[in-house]
This record gives sequence, C-alpha cells and structure tokens, in this order.
Amino acid sequence: MYIPTFDDMLVAHERIKPYIHRTPVLTSGYFNELTGAELFFKCESFQKAGAFKVRGASNAVFGLSDEEAENGVCTHSSGNHALSLSYAAGRRGIPCNVVMPRTAPEAKKAAVRGYGGTITECEPSTSSREEVFAKVQAATGGNFVHPYNDPRVIAGQGTCSRELNEQVEALDAVIAPIGGGGMISGTCLTMSNLAPDVKIYAAEPEQADDAYRSFKAGHIIADDAPDTVADGLKVPLKDLTWHFVSNHVTDILTASEQEIVDAMRMIWARMKIVMEPSSAVPLATILKNKDVFAGKRVGVIITGGNVDLDKLPWMNN
Amino acid sequence: MYIPTFDDMLVAHERIKPYIHRTPVLTSGYFNELTGAELFFKCESFQKAGAFKVRGASNAVFGLSDEEAENGVCTHSSGNHALSLSYAAGRRGIPCNVVMPRTAPEAKKAAVRGYGGTITECEPSTSSREEVFAKVQAATGGNFVHPYNDPRVIAGQGTCSRELNEQVEALDAVIAPIGGGGMISGTCLTMSNLAPDVKIYAAEPEQADDAYRSFKAGHIIADDAPDTVADGLKVPLKDLTWHFVSNHVTDILTASEQEIVDAMRMIWARMKIVMEPSSAVPLATILKNKDVFAGKRVGVIITGGNVDLDKLPWMNN
Repeated sequence: MYIPTFDDMLVAHERIKPYIHRTPVLTSGYFNELTGAELFFKCESFQKAGAFKVRGASNAVFGLSDEEAENGVCTHSSGNHALSLSYAAGRRGIPCNVVMPRTAPEAKKAAVRGYGGTITECEPSTSSREEVFAKVQAATGGNFVHPYNDPRVIAGQGTCSRELNEQVEALDAVIAPIGGGGMISGTCLTMSNLAPDVKIYAAEPEQADDAYRSFKAGHIIADDAPDTVADGLKVPLKDLTWHFVSNHVTDILTASEQEIVDAMRMIWARMKIVMEPSSAVPLATILKNKDVFAGKRVGVIITGGNVDLDKLPWMNN
Repeated sequence: MYIPTFDDMLVAHERIKPYIHRTPVLTSGYFNELTGAELFFKCESFQKAGAFKVRGASNAVFGLSDEEAENGVCTHSSGNHALSLSYAAGRRGIPCNVVMPRTAPEAKKAAVRGYGGTITECEPSTSSREEVFAKVQAATGGNFVHPYNDPRVIAGQGTCSRELNEQVEALDAVIAPIGGGGMISGTCLTMSNLAPDVKIYAAEPEQADDAYRSFKAGHIIADDAPDTVADGLKVPLKDLTWHFVSNHVTDILTASEQEIVDAMRMIWARMKIVMEPSSAVPLATILKNKDVFAGKRVGVIITGGNVDLDKLPWMNN
C-alpha cells in the first residue's frame, strides 16, 4: 500500500490547476451567531463538475503516461467521482467507463453522459457494484481510478485544504463529510503537514455510520447497502483511507436524516448555495455539537452541488 | 436633483465595508462555451441580506447623523431593498418601517421581520404603494430611503462594480438587470469613471419593459402594475436613474418569462447558485443576443438570491 505524501499533493496541485477552480470561501453572520463558532465554508459546490472530486480525478487522469492512458479510465461511483472522472478524461481526450447504482440521482447520470462518460448500471450495494465493475474493467482494459482508495485521488483531494489554509488564517478545526474517506484523507494529509494543530472532524449520516463505528471499534466496519439522503456517503472506508482516518481524525460526528435535510435547506436559504445533502452533514453535526465548536475558527468543506432540482428533499416530505 | 459623484461612491465603500461581503466572481466553462463570450458572474446573491441592495441601504443608514437617525428609516420596496434596509437599520439599532406589496415573496417578508423591520402591506401597484407609504412616513417620521432614486443608494450600489473592476481585468462590458435602475445607475457612475470604454447593458423582462421603452423613446415611461416572474424588476425609472440610463447605457435588452426561468434554472443547475428570477434576466438576454457579446469579456451582475424555496418557478409549470 503506497501512502501519498505531502509532496504528492503539491505535485497534484500544479498538475490540476488548469482543470479546476480555486473555489471561494464564504462566511455567514447568521450561522456564526447560531453556532457560536466562526465558520468558513469552502465551497466545492462551485468546483468544476460540481464537486471536489474533480481534484483527485484530474490528478489521476493527467498523471497517466500516454501508454497508461491508451485504454482510458474506468471506475465505480455513486455519482460525483463518476462525473469528475468523465470531465477529466474528456479534457484529456480518452474514454471513461463508469459503473453507477441505478438509484443514483438523474442529474448526476446526465452530467456523466454530458461529459462523454459511458455508464453501466448496477444495484445499489457494494457487492453488486464490485461485481459489475470487474466485468467492465475486463472488457475495456481502462486504468482503474478508485473513487477514494487511490493515492493519486487522495493527493488530489488534499489540494482543497491547501487552498483553504491559504484563504483563512489561524483555523482551529476543519470538518468535512465522510463516506469512503477520500476528502477526509486528503484533508489529513495536507493539514497534518501544513497546520498539524488543526483538528480534523468527519461528519456522517446516522443511517450510514460505518466510519463512525469503525473509528470507535478501531478497525474497518463496512455495511453493504446503507440508505441515506446523503447519496454521496454510502460507501465504506478502505485500507488507505482508514490509515488517515485512524491516525489523524479527532472525532466522527453523526446526524439524522431530518437534521441533514434541515441543515441543507438552511444553507440554501441563508447562504444561497445549491449544495447536495452530503454537503450539509457537517453543518448538521455542528448544530448538534455546539460545545465542540463554540469560539473556534472552523473550516467547513461544502463538498458538492449536484442535486436533482426537481426532487429536492424538503419537497418530498 | 443631486447627482452622486465618483467620490460619493468611494466614501460609500469605506463606510459600508464592515456591513457587506466582498462577493466572489465565479466563471463557468459551460456558459462560456454556450455563449461564445467570457462571462464573469459577480455574485451579489451571496451578499449580506442576500442582495446587492444592502450596499445602498447601508450607505444611507450609516451616513445619517444621530439626529437624522432618531426616528429611524422608512421605505417602500418589492423586497430586497426592504430587507437590506431592515438589516442595516438593525445593525445601527434604529427602527425600520417598510411598505411591501402583499404579493411579495414570503421569503422576503420573513427576512424583513427576521432583521427587525416592520411591514405595512399595499396592493401590487405603484399607485397603491405610494399612497400607503405616504401614511407610514407621516406616522413614523422616519428618514425616507428610496429603493433607487436616492443619491446615497446609487453611490452605494456603485461599489459593486468597483469590486468587479478590481476582480476582473480588461472587461469589455457589464450587464445587470434593470427595474428602477439603481444598480445600473451605480454601475454607470463607477465604470464611466474607472473604465469609460466598458459598455453597460441593462437587461429587462419583456413583460415589464418600461425602461426599454423609455430608452427608445428618450423619456421616462412608467407602467403602474407590470407582472413578471422577476419580482424585483417591476418598478419604473425615476429622474435620477434616468439621468444615468440615458447618458451611459449602451443598450437595453429584453427576455420573455420562459427565457428568464430557463436561464435561472440553468444557473442553478450548472453554477450551483441560488438566485432569484430577476438575476437570471442578464444571462437570458445574452443567450438571445450572442452576437452582441461573442468574443467579449462580460461582467454579469447576479443581483440577489432571495427566493421561496417551496415555490421555484419551474415547479409551478
């Protein structure tokens, strides 16, 4: 297992700069007052392809030699990694094959196709996903870019908190959602080098709390098919992300489905950011654990903005 | 009639800095490709109180002497000026009375109340609004801060394009929505001094095209009660804004209701910005007039983000 280094992150940042936005950091007097903390929202919802995942995907795609890139790339993903990899592959002009659960949001599937990716659908479980993916990979021979358990991807995701650290002085903590742990691992990689005193918190849906249980148990616990409105956070930790989570994360906090939807709607209404449910989990956990964050300067990573505008969660209730 | 000067704008910017955000400029490869132009979106949707109007309102409120501020401030507004003035008055600790059409979005009324403003409702016509306002002003004795035909307000709105001009080099044009003309007048004030070669375009709904007809006729034409999804743009030009529009605007372009809603949805879906229908009118007109903007570097002012999240226009269709 190769563990990506701080230098890998620096190389990644140079490599991907032409293909990503340096996303803005927004603040809200309303949320500062409500939480008692100073919150700095790093808005990866405004990132190219609508999510931070384009950082890791671009690093993988543009780091391939011409020979390695010949058969294109392939992956499985609940959505944002699929469309980010399609975007990056399209920019390089190589094929991209992705396996997506048939239940993934239509907006994400449409975006994959829009960027030129080819979708093969699977059932919404880890076992089905891995089985279908093995067939697709065998048929295409593409370079496998895992959505998070890949050193190239983690080095790419780490560029987000490098920017955040430049944009905001003297952070006390950073909080990001956790699914497979790619963003959190990149955050650990970068902050443990640049600002080792900054505490790293991960935020997870109660209904997909395998990372929380893993963290408490001291080893990886994986669920096959958790169900949550936070569709980006259903996947389990793997060895590489577990390395970063177990070594660098201060705590994992959880929130209920209703708390996630409430936080999502509050951010839309107050901060005018179109963001997906996964991105609301950090604020939902801050609102539940005000004592942990009060008086602190906290970076909050808004991971993505790819939602179906016809199916907003507060409209189905 | 006192016409605000470039120095008034500079003084305004210093005065209001503690009460406003320096909003980010976002770009979109998708929209650049679609329009053939290079678009730079100045996102006042992320402004405090959710709209650029907080600039002019704060300048008026914080420019009052203690004696002038004694009875607070009052105004009439379709929404964003009302809540911006309430926000600014709240920050100064003085009362704010506003007359709003009973048909104004609930989100805007709730925000006014949230900032401590007091609402008196009127019918959705200019005549009713002015009649009800005269009574409120007589009863409260508040300092009248007109939503746009006020030199303090125009000087404040001009600070937006000052920032835009610092954030983006070598603009060829700036486009903003036009209702009463406050933002456009501030833009003219600033750009005619800082970058006089930059063309200023105004964008207006076809169904409330009084500014367009005024511009073509060479004198102010006012409609009493136009109806458009762009609820911020129903008010007519007045003498002060007509001065700027008639002297500095290159052209006024219009878009249909469907074109406005389509452009709004595209910006939500692609750029992940919660913005109100009025803010989509510039992009709608750019998409209709690609030849005017192709090859140009164009600042597009996204004026505000205060919408009812339960009543999005594509959901009522």
